[in-house]
Amino acid sequence: MPSAQLLEFFDSPTVSPFFIEHINEEFTSVCPKTGHPDFGTITLRYEPKAVCVELKSLKLYYQAFRNEGIYYEAVTNKICADLSEAMSPAWLQIVADWRGRGGIRSRIVASSGPVPAAWARG
Amino acid sequence: MPSAQLLEFFDSPTVSPFFIEHINEEFTSVCPKTGHPDFGTITLRYEPKAVCVELKSLKLYYQAFRNEGIYYEAVTNKICADLSEAMSPAWLQIVADWRGRGGIRSRIVASSGPVPAAWARG
Amino acid sequence: MPSAQLLEFFDSPTVSPFFIEHINEEFTSVCPKTGHPDFGTITLRYEPKAVCVELKSLKLYYQAFRNEGIYYEAVTNKICADLSEAMSPAWLQIVADWRGRGGIRSRIVASSGPVPAAWARG
Amino acid sequence: MPSAQLLEFFDSPTVSPFFIEHINEEFTSVCPKTGHPDFGTITLRYEPKAVCVELKSLKLYYQAFRNEGIYYEAVTNKICADLSEAMSPAWLQIVADWRGRGGIRSRIVASSGPVPAAWARG
Amino acid sequence: MPSAQLLEFFDSPTVSPFFIEHINEEFTSVCPKTGHPDFGTITLRYEPKAVCVELKSLKLYYQAFRNEGIYYEAVTNKICADLSEAMSPAWLQIVADWRGRGGIRSRIVASSGPVPAAWARG
Amino acid sequence: MPSAQLLEFFDSPTVSPFFIEHINEEFTSVCPKTGHPDFGTITLRYEPKAVCVELKSLKLYYQAFRNEGIYYEAVTNKICADLSEAMSPAWLQIVADWRGRGGIRSRIVASSGPVPAAWARG
Amino acid sequence: MPSAQLLEFFDSPTVSPFFIEHINEEFTSVCPKTGHPDFGTITLRYEPKAVCVELKSLKLYYQAFRNEGIYYEAVTNKICADLSEAMSPAWLQIVADWRGRGGIRSRIVASSGPVPAAWARG
Amino acid sequence: MPSAQLLEFFDSPTVSPFFIEHINEEFTSVCPKTGHPDFGTITLRYEPKAVCVELKSLKLYYQAFRNEGIYYEAVTNKICADLSEAMSPAWLQIVADWRGRGGIRSRIVASSGPVPAAWARG
Amino acid sequence: MPSAQLLEFFDSPTVSPFFIEHINEEFTSVCPKTGHPDFGTITLRYEPKAVCVELKSLKLYYQAFRNEGIYYEAVTNKICADLSEAMSPAWLQIVADWRGRGGIRSRIVASSGPVPAAWARG
Amino acid sequence: MPSAQLLEFFDSPTVSPFFIEHINEEFTSVCPKTGHPDFGTITLRYEPKAVCVELKSLKLYYQAFRNEGIYYEAVTNKICADLSEAMSPAWLQIVADWRGRGGIRSRIVASSGPVPAAWARG
Repeated sequence: MPSAQLLEFFDSPTVSPFFIEHINEEFTSVCPKTGHPDFGTITLRYEPKAVCVELKSLKLYYQAFRNEGIYYEAVTNKICADLSEAMSPAWLQIVADWRGRGGIRSRIVASSGPVPAAWARG
Repeated sequence: MPSAQLLEFFDSPTVSPFFIEHINEEFTSVCPKTGHPDFGTITLRYEPKAVCVELKSLKLYYQAFRNEGIYYEAVTNKICADLSEAMSPAWLQIVADWRGRGGIRSRIVASSGPVPAAWARG
Repeated sequence: MPSAQLLEFFDSPTVSPFFIEHINEEFTSVCPKTGHPDFGTITLRYEPKAVCVELKSLKLYYQAFRNEGIYYEAVTNKICADLSEAMSPAWLQIVADWRGRGGIRSRIVASSGPVPAAWARG
Repeated sequence: MPSAQLLEFFDSPTVSPFFIEHINEEFTSVCPKTGHPDFGTITLRYEPKAVCVELKSLKLYYQAFRNEGIYYEAVTNKICADLSEAMSPAWLQIVADWRGRGGIRSRIVASSGPVPAAWARG
Repeated sequence: MPSAQLLEFFDSPTVSPFFIEHINEEFTSVCPKTGHPDFGTITLRYEPKAVCVELKSLKLYYQAFRNEGIYYEAVTNKICADLSEAMSPAWLQIVADWRGRGGIRSRIVASSGPVPAAWARG
Repeated sequence: MPSAQLLEFFDSPTVSPFFIEHINEEFTSVCPKTGHPDFGTITLRYEPKAVCVELKSLKLYYQAFRNEGIYYEAVTNKICADLSEAMSPAWLQIVADWRGRGGIRSRIVASSGPVPAAWARG
Repeated sequence: MPSAQLLEFFDSPTVSPFFIEHINEEFTSVCPKTGHPDFGTITLRYEPKAVCVELKSLKLYYQAFRNEGIYYEAVTNKICADLSEAMSPAWLQIVADWRGRGGIRSRIVASSGPVPAAWARG
Repeated sequence: MPSAQLLEFFDSPTVSPFFIEHINEEFTSVCPKTGHPDFGTITLRYEPKAVCVELKSLKLYYQAFRNEGIYYEAVTNKICADLSEAMSPAWLQIVADWRGRGGIRSRIVASSGPVPAAWARG
Repeated sequence: MPSAQLLEFFDSPTVSPFFIEHINEEFTSVCPKTGHPDFGTITLRYEPKAVCVELKSLKLYYQAFRNEGIYYEAVTNKICADLSEAMSPAWLQIVADWRGRGGIRSRIVASSGPVPAAWARG
Repeated sequence: MPSAQLLEFFDSPTVSPFFIEHINEEFTSVCPKTGHPDFGTITLRYEPKAVCVELKSLKLYYQAFRNEGIYYEAVTNKICADLSEAMSPAWLQIVADWRGRGGIRSRIVASSGPVPAAWARG
């Protein structure tokens, strides 16, 4: 299972609240039931408190799921938990959009903390 | 009439609140008045409490409407009722978008519980 | 002037609150000033209380405007008034989008009752 | 400078609150600094109190800016002031979207009165 | 580092509150880690109090980042701070949308003051 | 049945070959079988020899079909024949795109003379 | 298996060559291997010689495939053969676009006679 | 009437054949019949022989039509003739796309010389 | 390296020439230089002579590239060669569209036999 | 001026003819007249004879134009000439699409050798 140890962080450049969104359109893992690959887009949104996630380490962390057998719901919640625990952000949200299987496509949304009004209206 | 018995469930992977959306763009039933087929997209959105619906069983449940004669309003409310009763979710919503008939296309929205703020702003 | 008598209704399939939207992209009437035809899309949204409007009768009611000379603002408010009076819905909204005249396109929005929160966030 | 005298009005067809939006995609004026033409889309939104603006007179009022040298910010606020003063509407908003200059495109939004909840959620 | 001295301002044409948005789709700076160029769209939104930023000077200020090595998060916050300090606006927001690197594209949002309700609903 | 007498013409401004395309997105006639209205887009393309069709007269000619009961195939061929006979163009083509009936939308293409290479490649 | 007997025809309204295209976005049949439904869009294009296919009979012929187990390649060629044999058109083409299965979506193209230059360039 | 004297030229940077396309989405002139403004997009495509048109002079030439009363067909052919005469290109084409009037939008295409195969296939 | 042995075939349902296109939007392999994953869409187009490729076996063949280190140009040509050799089609084409790397996205096109006129014009 | 020495090549993986297209959406150079930056998309298409261009070296070659003052027409022809000379391809084409200046956007197309039929129809 991909380790949160892969992630690196740097100090936030400001103490003012601001928002960061990283959209990875090249996420793939494996369905544990059928063994077939799953493809999706993982959107990370957060309001940093002290640190920001370094972009290249985030890419490597995502790539580590490539050959893991893991369900939609589980992978979304694991990414949310790993990043929340490592960064202690003011707010964090993972939106996972999965390409269709059997004619059904899916979105899973996991969050840590309430959506800030400034983001919701932005 | 399709039975909710077709549906299978698995335990939610987390006790934290999160959201799931499954979009089925291949739904079809039959108009009970004209006998002509209806085509639509059924979007299921919910916040699980204890269990999640298994995706393949959801597909088979939807396919069971294929030769049923049933109105737009009735099918939307039946799917909402079947899934709400079987899962007791924190929130559930069915949005049915029907392709046009006689130049008019329709959307029917049925819900169980109020829309959570975290979803509305997500 | 088209009569609300053309409209037919059926009992709502549930007592739970839900929403219905019918989008007619083939509406046409006549400008009373110039005699030229107007073309628009009429969107009906409502939360039924006891009855729902039958789709084919709605189509015939709309078609009855085909050779009527009537202004944008008046036709929108008339449809809103006719349907509200006939159905006594919990909420009803008519959005009329008119194709351009002289480089200007227009939208007229008339409502009966406040927008329900469940629709606005849905 | 275009005169509000060009505008004509007619009585609102109803005392119920409703909304009107006119989108003019063919607005042009002249930049007072460079003398080059500016092109934009002017969206007028309002809730009438007693009167509505007549569409053809609105077009002629807009066309009167064709050879005026006037800045983005000024033209937007002038249209907002002219129409608000002449109609005393319950609410009025002008959104001006300007095509790019030097790689930068702009939107100016001026309002008279707070945005009604019914419009914002509609 | 680009200086806020490049920016010029003019008096707001009205004391009524209104909103301005300038979208620059031609922003480029340099990644300080790899030396490769970054490309993005910078959206400036604000409610002026006394002054507005002059558009050509804004373009030159943005162009001054062309050969600067600076991170996504830092450049967004610097532009937000420079413009807020120089204009003392009622509200100001910078949204920076960066083209992808390694399959991940990013948005950074920095603000000065809460989002006005009139903009959020506009 | 609409008469070609409604059409007016003016002398072509040049003897060099050139092409004209007029796209009418507001065409409507009536289905002779069901009595329901049909809606479509009529595209006229031609290479003039001596005369061009005047735009306002073309609009009035199209509007004269509004209450005619006539099939897709017949209306397309009639417009092609009327305009070809009246203008004797070097080439003329009518493309009629009809909105759907019973889930099927249709295009009818009638021509007078072979498609000029200059148009096909332009 | 659906019978070509369902199809009805009417005399072509002209002896001049012209083209007809009917696009059915609501086609469904069943995969004979898995028993799951297939969904697709069937485009019929032809140049009539003596007769045209009547639109409502075409719809009923297509609907007759609803519960047939038949492969993509076979259904496309069967429709092409049935219509070609019944109408003896100057040219006929069936393009079937199938929604994805296992991440792969498909198009099958069957024709009777060479593509006319007038269509290809139109 | 705008003069071709406004146009400036520079030597082509190569003797190899190549193609140039300039798309002006901000063209406006005046309808000589109604006095109302016309808005369109003018696309110039050419294969230079000895000289290329300078971009700023082309813009000023186009702007000189701003208050001219001139028909669609005439303005397209005049631009084609002015540029062809001044540059003697190997090939030149003007495509003018006009925004709608009375629900009809138009395209006029004028050329000097046959479309080169390299452009048509490019 | 993935083996063409994974592919299965079935007899073509007709001796008439027809075309098949399978679009796989979920292809992934690994860059042999950097070790990072590549993502692309592989389009297979062919005119069968005696046999067609079975869709599920094609999916498994594509999935076998998942952890292979292989360049864009090589993978496209290998798929083209494997399928051409195994099916001896009348014509076959592979179009591979790769998501961007370093701001550059790529398309590789390999063919076996000339493009049939019927496909090119279809 | 950027040197073709920056480019690296590798042997084509096959002797069969095939096509390669690299689309760089992040090209920027400087206008020699105004000193302002130009932004464009450079599309390289070619049929290799013996060698292919290495993608990272192509990116660095393009980046070397970042601070060069050079006209649209010249940069397009220089890239065409540099790559043609270095690779001696069977065919090569450069399409440069430039973002607008003064409301006019431009495309320049330079080629070496005739467009192969297989590409044009592909």
